[in-house]
Formats: sequence, structure tokens, C-alpha cells
Amino acid sequence: MKRVVLTQARIATMARGGPPYGLVADGAIAVEEGRIAWVGPRDALPGEWAAAERVSAGGRLATPALVDCHTHLVFGGERAREFEKRLQGASYEEIARAGGGIVSTVAATRAMGEEALAEAALPRLDALLAEGVTTVEVKSGYGLTVEDELKMLRAARRLEGLRRVRVRTSYLAAHAVPPEYRGRADAYIDEVVLPGMEAAHAAGLADAVDGFCEGIAFSPDQIARVFEKARALGLPVKLHAEQLSNLGGAALAARHGALSADHLEYLDEEGIAAMAGAGTVAVLLPGAFYTLREEKVPPVAGLRAAGVPMAVATDCNPGSSPLASLLLAMNMACTLFRLTPEEALAGATREAARALGLQAELGTIEVGKRAEIALWDVEHPAELSYRIGFNPLHGLFPGEPA
Amino acid sequence: MKRVVLTQARIATMARGGPPYGLVADGAIAVEEGRIAWVGPRDALPGEWAAAERVSAGGRLATPALVDCHTHLVFGGERAREFEKRLQGASYEEIARAGGGIVSTVAATRAMGEEALAEAALPRLDALLAEGVTTVEVKSGYGLTVEDELKMLRAARRLEGLRRVRVRTSYLAAHAVPPEYRGRADAYIDEVVLPGMEAAHAAGLADAVDGFCEGIAFSPDQIARVFEKARALGLPVKLHAEQLSNLGGAALAARHGALSADHLEYLDEEGIAAMAGAGTVAVLLPGAFYTLREEKVPPVAGLRAAGVPMAVATDCNPGSSPLASLLLAMNMACTLFRLTPEEALAGATREAARALGLQAELGTIEVGKRAEIALWDVEHPAELSYRIGFNPLHGLFPGEPA
Ligand SMILES: [Zn+2]
Ligand SMILES: [Zn+2]
Repeated sequence: MKRVVLTQARIATMARGGPPYGLVADGAIAVEEGRIAWVGPRDALPGEWAAAERVSAGGRLATPALVDCHTHLVFGGERAREFEKRLQGASYEEIARAGGGIVSTVAATRAMGEEALAEAALPRLDALLAEGVTTVEVKSGYGLTVEDELKMLRAARRLEGLRRVRVRTSYLAAHAVPPEYRGRADAYIDEVVLPGMEAAHAAGLADAVDGFCEGIAFSPDQIARVFEKARALGLPVKLHAEQLSNLGGAALAARHGALSADHLEYLDEEGIAAMAGAGTVAVLLPGAFYTLREEKVPPVAGLRAAGVPMAVATDCNPGSSPLASLLLAMNMACTLFRLTPEEALAGATREAARALGLQAELGTIEVGKRAEIALWDVEHPAELSYRIGFNPLHGLFPGEPA
Repeated sequence: MKRVVLTQARIATMARGGPPYGLVADGAIAVEEGRIAWVGPRDALPGEWAAAERVSAGGRLATPALVDCHTHLVFGGERAREFEKRLQGASYEEIARAGGGIVSTVAATRAMGEEALAEAALPRLDALLAEGVTTVEVKSGYGLTVEDELKMLRAARRLEGLRRVRVRTSYLAAHAVPPEYRGRADAYIDEVVLPGMEAAHAAGLADAVDGFCEGIAFSPDQIARVFEKARALGLPVKLHAEQLSNLGGAALAARHGALSADHLEYLDEEGIAAMAGAGTVAVLLPGAFYTLREEKVPPVAGLRAAGVPMAVATDCNPGSSPLASLLLAMNMACTLFRLTPEEALAGATREAARALGLQAELGTIEVGKRAEIALWDVEHPAELSYRIGFNPLHGLFPGEPA
């Protein structure tokens, strides 16, 4: 399928600076060698495309394929019993004492092989793909030894061979201090996080480096050491920041030219200004906000006013966000965080691509971008965020890898 | 498929009074003529079933098929643009002035024929069925003329011919005062609600009668008039009550022997006691609570202490709950209302059946009940409520109408 034209599409190009959603009411998209070669009103399609194969969208809505730019898709075990115990009244301490919490996920992940970890991630991945996602970021962070972190990254890479999906990996050894290093976070960084990063980089397993900057995880100084090593290796960075408190993580990330700072419920004006200055994307994760029943929402109005790009992702993970629907994350971003449906869709396409450094390749329907287009059985793009627990995907165009 | 045995199943029978979830670790279910003839540990299966056809559940979890006991599945139009306008800052008044709100759904519903209304409901119905739902309650309430209310009920009945589903209809003309009766709610009841009820009953279109008791809808006195007529016709009643304020609707419903009182965020102790005394089911609708960003949760602890059965439903409707996933309603019931996963599953099976008066037929895996069994790719029943935006249904047993 070298040259093909999609016709009879309403197209939400999501290109900046045009009409809302970059909407083309009766549009066509010409694709050549897997790239978008032309997009515009159907009756303006250049004559050179007259002989190309045509596919009708049947009046459906076309959007860029979705991008889930923050997931912990690869892990062992699940934590439904912990969810149940909490609802039966157990405290976090009681659950931790019973071996629950992230420690249980680390133990289960360490016990599994690379292949089994990839297999276990498939049902979650399939749920995302069924909603028109073609690019998924996947983090390590439940291995917490050099070998187990690399194993997680290899499992993530392996997903690309099992499904039609682009995987971007983030090395997140600085996710939690494992039990064997309790009270010795700096030693953990020296002995595991930094050498593991070097090994992951050498093996081509890490597309970026991530960390968790929080009282219950790592301090800004510790994260700075991780970021300095990443920059020395030429790896882009990103950060879980300001989720439960304000430690200035977002500003720290911005100072290191981070692709994104993620969560951001406790982000302040200074952090917003730093992110705006550095072009760091704000990745909003309403699934975790919802699951943890947080009350403080990210400063969306401030981010909007400062022109900080806002992405939306699932944060799919077994503890704080067992969410496997990016459409639902979009609805939650609107309902809980008051994004507009246009911001939510941009957040799962254009800005999510930017958060992965893929903005030249993906995220909008514009000439030169990869042809990864989702077709939806809806009239208006706002419907994608409006519905709850409903998937109107018709399919992808082109249907096969082009 | 007259006699068939399901084996190698973990069975959450949801029968009362046994272990949590009524769990049978390694169970079998014998089905004869579409009814459950035997259920128990596999190695205790009576010899008379030795020759019957066997189907292996492959170790999967078996639960009663789900029941969605409160939906507004049949309606015209959608309200994504209204959702968008609100997020862009428009007030409810501005939206109402622009023809939005329930009035827009009423206009779209009135403009459609019975067949088109049924067709429009199919994608929503299919989303529910894909999660193992086999019984759906569907309300009228967007016609608000005798003819249009009957048309909605006929459209709901028609769904049974289009899909493998059991539909229970509720006549809900007392949903809103239509524009042509503004300020004349009593006249609307006399001229539309009561004669329409008689006509719906005569045509066999109404399985129950519902109403909306709220400042923005109908007063307790007006609802009482609706209920008296229903009881004179021998129709069971139910009520949207205590959603936005406390008008004593639940107690009123209980006094009329209601099957259920629904929403109940503002329910008080008196209402709880009245429901407990009458055996009225509390139908919890977290999708509406979530969408409207309410803060007051239903008194779950009080309902639990009083032994009031709690059901969970989607409230699928175009305005306050565009939710088409009963599994997600279960997760929301846990996360937002603090039900346990066992209560949430009971709420979508046993208690939902009770809310429809079908407790002798459906809702548990017990001898004599209809054989409508959902098989899930999960280890533990708590996983059904724990995951968000993820559907682990394997299929129904028996696979074909038995
Ligand atoms: Zn995360
Ligand atoms: Zn309702």
C-alpha cells in the first residue's frame, strides 16, 4: 500500500493554529510510503492523486492515532486483593505489613522472566490498542536491581514484536527504594540506579530516564544525580513530580530540559514558569488522582495560561491506577481536571507525542508525519471525551503497517 | 443443549450466607432446560450427570451474568457539545437558553421513530452485553407525551428482538415537566403521566413505574399521585430519590412498596429505616455522581448496617451519566462510594435482580435460577471491580440461549 487516499472523512488534524481540533469537514488524506503526503478538503485533492487507491471513511471522524505517553504496563501480579482489603477497612500500614503495596509488585516482577512479563502485559496492551493507540510508553521500575530493570525493559521492547505498536521505554529504577536498601537511598542510586542506567543505555534499552521525586521516594538532590548521569549519556529525562507534595521536582526537571513532568497536582507558579521556559510537557494522570481519591487538582488554568503543553495518559499500573483505557483518561481529564475535550484529545495525540520527543513523527495529521490515523464512529470529536466506558473506534488507517 | 455441565470453574455463586462471594474453588454447574439444576464442588457432582455434555471453564471465574437495573438506554441525539460548552465555561443557564439540557434530548427523541430509537441504542447496549450483561432495565422519560413515551417503551422492547438480552421497561413519564407544561406539573401528570401509564399498561409495555422526585422535577405529593395510579394498575414502582436534596422520596417509595429507590446521595436515617422495613433496594449510580462532580456520597455505612440491599447500575443517559460500562460503575461504586468489591459484584448481580423483582429467576448461581453465567479471565472476583476501563469477559455459559 504505497499510495492511498482516504476520502469522505471528517478530519480532526489536531494541527495547531487552525480551527478547533484543526477540523476539515469533508476531507481527504493522501498517504505515500507510510507518511502523510497531503491533507485538506476533499475537493482540493491535487490531480496527481487521481489514480491512487481510494478508501472511504464513510463520513467517519479521523484523528491522529492515540499515544499513551505514561504507563507502567509491564509488571508481575496484580493487587485486587489489596484494593479489597483497603475497602474492607485495612490501613496502608496493615497492607504493607501483610506484604502488599509496591513491594508485592516488585516481588512478583522479580520472580517472572522477560517473556512471561511481556505476555502478562498483553491484555492491558490490547485494551489500549483497541482504542486506537499505536504508541505506548512503558517504564521499568518494579525490578529495582540492575538485572530486573533490564529484564523489564527487554519485556517492553518485546511487545513490539507481539503487536502492531511502537513502544518507547523509560528507565525508572529511581521509582522506589527496594526493601534491601531501606534507609539507604543514596547507596541504591550508586549501586543500582546509575550502573543500571549505563547498562540499559549500552544495550539500547532506554529511550529516556524517569524518576519519582517525592517524600516516599527520592529527594530532588537524589533525582539530580540521576538526571546528571542521564544527560552525560545523552538520554532525555522526565519525572514523576508534585503528585503528593511540592518538592520543586517539575522545576528541577525543567532545568534538565525534561521532556515531561508528570502528575503535578501540587505544582506551583514557579514550577509552571520553569516548565514553560523549558518546553517541558505537563503529563496529567487523572486515573491516579481518581484511584487515590486526591482532592487537589493540577493547576490546569495556570498551565493553560503559561502555554505549557498538557498531555493525558493512563499511568496504567497495578497500584494507584489500574486503568487500561486512554479514552477514559481523557474523560477523567475533562470531568475531574476540567480540560476541554479539545485539550483532552490534543493531550492524547499531539502533546503526548511531544512528551515522548516524537512530535516530528506523530501526533497530528500533517504533511510529513507518519500515517497512523484512527477512524471513529462519532460525529464530533468532543464525543471521544464525553462518553464514559465506551469505545467508538472503527479502525486504523492505513489498515496494515504502511 | 438440554443437559450440560460446566466444569473446572471457580464459581462466585453470590448466594447469601456462605463464604465471601459464595465461592466454590473447583466447582461444577449442571444445567437442564436453561435452569441451574446443580452447583457445587466438582468432585461432588451427582452420578446422574456423568453422561451429560461437559464444557470446561478452563479454571476461569464463573459469576452470575450481570444485570444493569437502571438505564436510560433509549434516547435521541447526544450531548457531547453541551459537555464541551460547559468545560469551555458556559453556565447551565446559558446551555438551557441555547436549547441544551434534557430539553434537547426530548426534542431529538420526539423526532425519531421507534425503530430508529432502538437502532441508536444498540451501540450502548452492545457495550453492556460485551461485559456479560444479560438483563437491562430501560426507562422511558424523554418522550413526555403519551405517544412518545409509548414509542420509547416499544423501542426498548424491540431490543429483545435485536440482541440476546432481557429488557425490563420502566414507565418514566414523571421524569421532567416538558416545556409545553412549564409551571403546570399537576396538569402534566393529569393529562400525560396518568393516561400514558394506563395506555402503557394496557399495551403490556410497562414492567414498572418510575418517577423523579426532586426540586427540579416532581414533588412528593405529585409522585404519590403517580404511585397510587401505578398500584391501582398493579404495577410495581421505583423512584429517583434524594439525588440532589432530601425530599423524603425514598420513604415515600418505601411506603408504596417500591422495588427500589435510586441515587440516594441525600438519603437520611429515616429514609434508610423505611427502605429496610419495606425491602426496597438502594440502587447506587456512581456514574452520575462522578459526572456531576457531586460531593455528598450515599450513606453506604448506614444502608449496610440496616441491611438494605445495595445495587449498582450505570444510569446510562446522555446528560448526567453517559456511561456504558457496568464494570466501571462497579469500580466507581468501590472507589467513590467505598463499597467492597463483593458488595459491588452483588450490586450488579443479586441485588440488581432484586431491584427488578427478578430475584427468583436471576442474580445468583443457585439451583432453580436461570442458567445465565459469565466466565471471566480473572483469578479472583475482586479483580472485576479493581480494574478500570478493562473488560476481562471470556464469554457466557451456556453460549447459546438454552
Ligand atoms: Zn507513573
Ligand atoms: Zn436515572
